[in-house]
Amino acid sequence: MQTPWDHRFAQRTQRMGSSVIRELLKLTEQPDIISFAGGLPAPDVFPIEEIREACNRVLDNIGQYALQYGTTEGYLPLRELIMRHSARYGINVKPDNILITSGSQQALDLLGKILINPGDRILVESPTYLGALQAWSAYGAEYVTVPMDEFGMVTDNLEEALRSGPKFIYVLPNFQNPTGVTLSADRRQKLVELADRYGVPIVEDDPYGQLRYEGEHLPPIVLMDKEYREASDSAYAGNVIYLSTFSKILSPGIRLAWVVAPPIVIRKLVQAKQGADLHTSTFNQIMVYEVAKGGFLDKHIKLIRDVYGERRDAMLGAMDAYFPPGVEWTHPEGGLFLWGVLPENLSAAEVLKSAIEQKVAFVPGEPFYPTGGGHNTMRLNFSNATPDKIREGISRMGKAIYEKLGEPVAL
Amino acid sequence: MQTPWDHRFAQRTQRMGSSVIRELLKLTEQPDIISFAGGLPAPDVFPIEEIREACNRVLDNIGQYALQYGTTEGYLPLRELIMRHSARYGINVKPDNILITSGSQQALDLLGKILINPGDRILVESPTYLGALQAWSAYGAEYVTVPMDEFGMVTDNLEEALRSGPKFIYVLPNFQNPTGVTLSADRRQKLVELADRYGVPIVEDDPYGQLRYEGEHLPPIVLMDKEYREASDSAYAGNVIYLSTFSKILSPGIRLAWVVAPPIVIRKLVQAKQGADLHTSTFNQIMVYEVAKGGFLDKHIKLIRDVYGERRDAMLGAMDAYFPPGVEWTHPEGGLFLWGVLPENLSAAEVLKSAIEQKVAFVPGEPFYPTGGGHNTMRLNFSNATPDKIREGISRMGKAIYEKLGEPVAL
Repeated sequence: MQTPWDHRFAQRTQRMGSSVIRELLKLTEQPDIISFAGGLPAPDVFPIEEIREACNRVLDNIGQYALQYGTTEGYLPLRELIMRHSARYGINVKPDNILITSGSQQALDLLGKILINPGDRILVESPTYLGALQAWSAYGAEYVTVPMDEFGMVTDNLEEALRSGPKFIYVLPNFQNPTGVTLSADRRQKLVELADRYGVPIVEDDPYGQLRYEGEHLPPIVLMDKEYREASDSAYAGNVIYLSTFSKILSPGIRLAWVVAPPIVIRKLVQAKQGADLHTSTFNQIMVYEVAKGGFLDKHIKLIRDVYGERRDAMLGAMDAYFPPGVEWTHPEGGLFLWGVLPENLSAAEVLKSAIEQKVAFVPGEPFYPTGGGHNTMRLNFSNATPDKIREGISRMGKAIYEKLGEPVAL
Repeated sequence: MQTPWDHRFAQRTQRMGSSVIRELLKLTEQPDIISFAGGLPAPDVFPIEEIREACNRVLDNIGQYALQYGTTEGYLPLRELIMRHSARYGINVKPDNILITSGSQQALDLLGKILINPGDRILVESPTYLGALQAWSAYGAEYVTVPMDEFGMVTDNLEEALRSGPKFIYVLPNFQNPTGVTLSADRRQKLVELADRYGVPIVEDDPYGQLRYEGEHLPPIVLMDKEYREASDSAYAGNVIYLSTFSKILSPGIRLAWVVAPPIVIRKLVQAKQGADLHTSTFNQIMVYEVAKGGFLDKHIKLIRDVYGERRDAMLGAMDAYFPPGVEWTHPEGGLFLWGVLPENLSAAEVLKSAIEQKVAFVPGEPFYPTGGGHNTMRLNFSNATPDKIREGISRMGKAIYEKLGEPVAL
């Protein structure tokens, strides 16, 4: 049907065609499918009782304030709580270094809004987070890529990419989405130095940093940048914008995340956010502050680590047992995802079709490569399903891969 | 202090300079000021108990679902509730005509994202809602204006403006922000016909439509457009995008609003929203559904009408009593605002300075005029303060105006 709208959409909407994540989220809604496709936290560890108590306290004590319009910057006690949280990781900032956003996806969108002119090149890891590409392509971004290996972005290839004049570098240093890989300490240092030398800022996206199941915490890039600059004790004004979120340590359904950045960047982001949604839900901000203020999150993160660590181990074990020779995968030290590489002659999209027949789903890796590649790669989420479901799902996936290999199913 | 960011902001951020609303919201936070400056609902009528009960029910019954990621389109039962609500006003739509947004401000931003190419002209009333200008200027919009009088947009001036080729028409037909004026039925019809003749779509922004204190409800433009087209009973696919919100009838702090539009527009908005914030808080959507599903809002809106109607009358009465001759104002039949016009030789910005000394605040009208004008106009909010505070505040404003008129204060 023709409508008055057919020829009225802005040029940039041509670039928003891909709705891969959304379509995949729909797949995960079929109840009989075991889905490794989404990036869903485990709902069985949501602290429902603590959130219920916090809702009641907020509404009983400051209900009128919590239901009213708030400031764009965010609820000050929550920003101060994030300030204290950041200080534990050595990131000493002040409230005017912090903006509360409606999930980290909004932070990515607002960064696009304040930083990207059409045609600007953004330097990203390849593969990288699909949601960032979606947010920035809407502002006319182009991409220059640096490949990944088991230690993260291959910084030996970074200088060549920096010479193409990117607007900023986007990096997910901890248990990257989609690969699960962590950027090594040496490469973090090299990244900081090269970014400074070429005068290119860094956006450090860290949704999973606290969900480490083995190995040692590595310093955030924002901190290494600060030390490299030997900055004063004044509020942080360096080369790195740091993003994190409550989605993976509390609940994604409440849509609450934050940005740490120099005040000049926060001010621009506040202007952009004012036009984008005025402010993030006052009620949700105060409720999360109430949940978190007494130190509950420390205890809760320990629980999440235990649960997700077990699920990661279940998936790795099942892959050892059920996947054919020739399939390889990463061994993430934390986070929600691991990355599989099929034999070169197999297409992950083709394997997905067989997998869905077997009632199991994953994400083919190709859309995560902004400049092409990865036809035989796939992302698997291990946080959402129980260990039993994971073993069953990986066994089904094994069958689907064997089928596509044209070999007898040896299960 | 120089930072690596100083010269990195996108061209469009030059246009985001104005943060008038935000700065004014800050003013209202000083406790000793009587503020008519914001657009704040009355917190004393927030249904805290109903919201508390709904939070508990949601967390007790479907807590895991409510705290998880959700779909970009929005919680289906809430969209169906909005569908039934719309049907009462003759707007027959289906769920794929409805998108839930994080407040109406996000709807304005997403419309900018999918519709506006840099340099596109948007046809707006003059004065018009500042938040729309902020949202769209960030996408490079230009404006063509049509003046307002006591019956709304002067449609006799509309054809000339339409011949300049605007991308769409933006209109607030009911108790407009900032003027409080309502577009007459005749002019709504003329607007629909001219928009159709020139092939220009309409964005109808209706945050206040249900808050009418006298006179009769007028049909929404989206409905008149449908009747003009004699459209089939199928899902709405006409020339009008309709926006409304829970902010003024329930709570603004929960950030929940909706768009009614042809499915082709909703699909584009969903893509844009996916990149902007993935989806609106699942918890807030389900909680509002729980509050609203049993018909509570009908009763609650009656209460709001009583309270705000009394406040409007208190303000109008006090203006009669305390304002000098030569000051004029609108008589809104609903909504949250009225509009004052000072004598031509007085500047509202100058009067505001005196007013703040008297501990009372309002918004000078000039920023609401995208192409200039209105130096002697002002917007006054009557929903937030109690009738006694309103009378006291208007009396202080009267003093401030008398002072600027250079006449003895006759109070």
